[in-house]
Amino acid sequence: MNIAILGFGTIGSGVYEIIEHATTPETKALHVTHILIRKGKPKTLPYMCDDIETILNDPALDVVVETMGGLEPAHTYILQALQAGKHVVTANKVVVAAYVKEFHECASENDVNFYYEASTGGGIPWIQGLEKALRIDQVNRIHGIFNGTSNFILDHMQRYQATFDEVLKEAQHLGYAEADPSADIDGFDICNKLRISASIAYDYHVPDNFPVFGIRTITKEDVQYFKSLGMAVRLIAKTKRQGNTYSCVVEPILFKENQLEANTMDNYNLITLHGDTIGDLKFFGQGAGKLATANAVVQDILDILEGKAHRVLHFQKEMQYDTTLCNRDYIVRCDKSLRPMLHHLSYDSSTFDKYLHVKNVEVAHMHELMKEILKHDATAFMASIHDHREEL
Amino acid sequence: MNIAILGFGTIGSGVYEIIEHATTPETKALHVTHILIRKGKPKTLPYMCDDIETILNDPALDVVVETMGGLEPAHTYILQALQAGKHVVTANKVVVAAYVKEFHECASENDVNFYYEASTGGGIPWIQGLEKALRIDQVNRIHGIFNGTSNFILDHMQRYQATFDEVLKEAQHLGYAEADPSADIDGFDICNKLRISASIAYDYHVPDNFPVFGIRTITKEDVQYFKSLGMAVRLIAKTKRQGNTYSCVVEPILFKENQLEANTMDNYNLITLHGDTIGDLKFFGQGAGKLATANAVVQDILDILEGKAHRVLHFQKEMQYDTTLCNRDYIVRCDKSLRPMLHHLSYDSSTFDKYLHVKNVEVAHMHELMKEILKHDATAFMASIHDHREEL
Repeated sequence: MNIAILGFGTIGSGVYEIIEHATTPETKALHVTHILIRKGKPKTLPYMCDDIETILNDPALDVVVETMGGLEPAHTYILQALQAGKHVVTANKVVVAAYVKEFHECASENDVNFYYEASTGGGIPWIQGLEKALRIDQVNRIHGIFNGTSNFILDHMQRYQATFDEVLKEAQHLGYAEADPSADIDGFDICNKLRISASIAYDYHVPDNFPVFGIRTITKEDVQYFKSLGMAVRLIAKTKRQGNTYSCVVEPILFKENQLEANTMDNYNLITLHGDTIGDLKFFGQGAGKLATANAVVQDILDILEGKAHRVLHFQKEMQYDTTLCNRDYIVRCDKSLRPMLHHLSYDSSTFDKYLHVKNVEVAHMHELMKEILKHDATAFMASIHDHREEL
Repeated sequence: MNIAILGFGTIGSGVYEIIEHATTPETKALHVTHILIRKGKPKTLPYMCDDIETILNDPALDVVVETMGGLEPAHTYILQALQAGKHVVTANKVVVAAYVKEFHECASENDVNFYYEASTGGGIPWIQGLEKALRIDQVNRIHGIFNGTSNFILDHMQRYQATFDEVLKEAQHLGYAEADPSADIDGFDICNKLRISASIAYDYHVPDNFPVFGIRTITKEDVQYFKSLGMAVRLIAKTKRQGNTYSCVVEPILFKENQLEANTMDNYNLITLHGDTIGDLKFFGQGAGKLATANAVVQDILDILEGKAHRVLHFQKEMQYDTTLCNRDYIVRCDKSLRPMLHHLSYDSSTFDKYLHVKNVEVAHMHELMKEILKHDATAFMASIHDHREEL
């Protein structure tokens, strides 16, 4: 089976490495025949080229692996590859979240496969786990630690009583965080992964119009305060369906210290689904990283090789976003002068001076309030409390 | 697709329920056409019969689901079904652990499938996860909480400071434990699941000649002592390979309180594999129970329906059991008069009076010693300490 890799960064080179150093009969059947690199970059391997047309026009090519990241030219190349009758495997969550419906339609029209296990949960067989569960159950609830960088920061802030900046620097030093960590710490990376997961679960292309609140403003004191309450904070993406309505949210959530989420360390991911007959299933592993993510790409390639079709999605369901579907308790820290903005909510007046515990707020409303608060106090932070009544 | 269910206990009736109350297009394609019940039992459903020949001779039948449990007649019926050209799906760990090689060979000779996801890890897609990992990596380490009953007992003893007998009674009341709980608490249930997992991982039919020590003698005081050391005990099955040697063991293992195993509550299972490129993967979910286990059976049936072949195993590898492959630290409680039996080991003389901490003992040797000790002190207990150097 002949494979072209578009982009030779961390994941692309990881895919090449796994195939070149194949140790199993399955992976020994794979051959990298093209690597697309940027124009002007040195061609350090014989397979390298800087011309997408050469790749698309090669009749011997079976699979195009897209690991360039970003929207364009990834979007265009994926469509061109599908139209040229090539199977496509991608690790690119940004382009999948935005165009999953178009890609599925185009793959179906051209009778080829479009797979993207590596786009969500890195090496964790999450998408296949979800697709499998959907054969028998409706999956009406998903939540997860979908981002290793933010988890590393929150875990290390708690375990080593460190500041956000200290841990962020360490994460950057270890290669877990980008020089500009915004996508990870502001929740937008997770947002894409939640869209992909919920789109599969609901067979509906979920738009990105849901509330997202990250961890940029969390302090060492916040984390220690949560710890004093017996809780640990994790940045969570969560979705819930009821009939043909659904909600999605990305926000910091507090878990009791004996819950698995609270004990998910370092840069690991932990993703949970709930189905009626299967109950709770949780998948834990490396949510990023060169070889683990490349492993997921190669798994998709092997599914194509072995003719193991993934779930057929049409994205024709009618779903409504419902802001009233989800109420939660929050702990909010903001300048005291801004407290009146929260006084219409039900709150626990006995709670510690610096933090206000508000009760049973509509999630979307709380996020709106927080946006207003941040205009006046850019250091404010909030986290919701994991609701055991909707325990997964 | 027409299905016969052999045995109509918890799992068999769960399979029937999922298929009869199908909510997805996939499950709606399944039809139960025969249910084999014991001779003399009342036929409460039209599909019921007490005659295996009727089932085997029905040319319209596609899949035989075996949920009778035990060795015989399950072993014979499975072989007969395969020879009659029927695919077989089983949830029966006892018969799979004993005859997995024979069943695979017979299925291959008759060009049908033999699948057993439900035999290990209940509803958790563990076997498929393992098989998938093996397409790319060697899996040289597996460990897991494979038994919900023992986990429920250990977790509740710790969380509610209860005695073994109190929690066992509760587990029996809740239907988590049998009237005779021996298989669960003495580790033999887990032993079968480890054999199945290791046999797949190594493509070698692993015999049951490895050390097994259960939790029958654990006391409330033991659990609280471990807690005072910042650890929680779990009954673990573990295997490790190095080249063509391997080790297997079932024993109580102590985990630091922030490890996921230590926070695996109630009757949940948590199973871990390690591969070179994928790193650590952990699967969490219901390891038993009617609908979760039946879900795994139906998943196998759907794989047959969709033509998704599972891993082809030949069990032709040459593997040697190596007792020296695994050394570990143990905490041992036994009558003080028996201490001299341990004095040839390296131990920490500063450890608390009632418990001896022994260091770096060969696992098989420690199990032999414990067998001797139990002859003189039937209340003795031991647990090993999870080795972070061989962290999965």
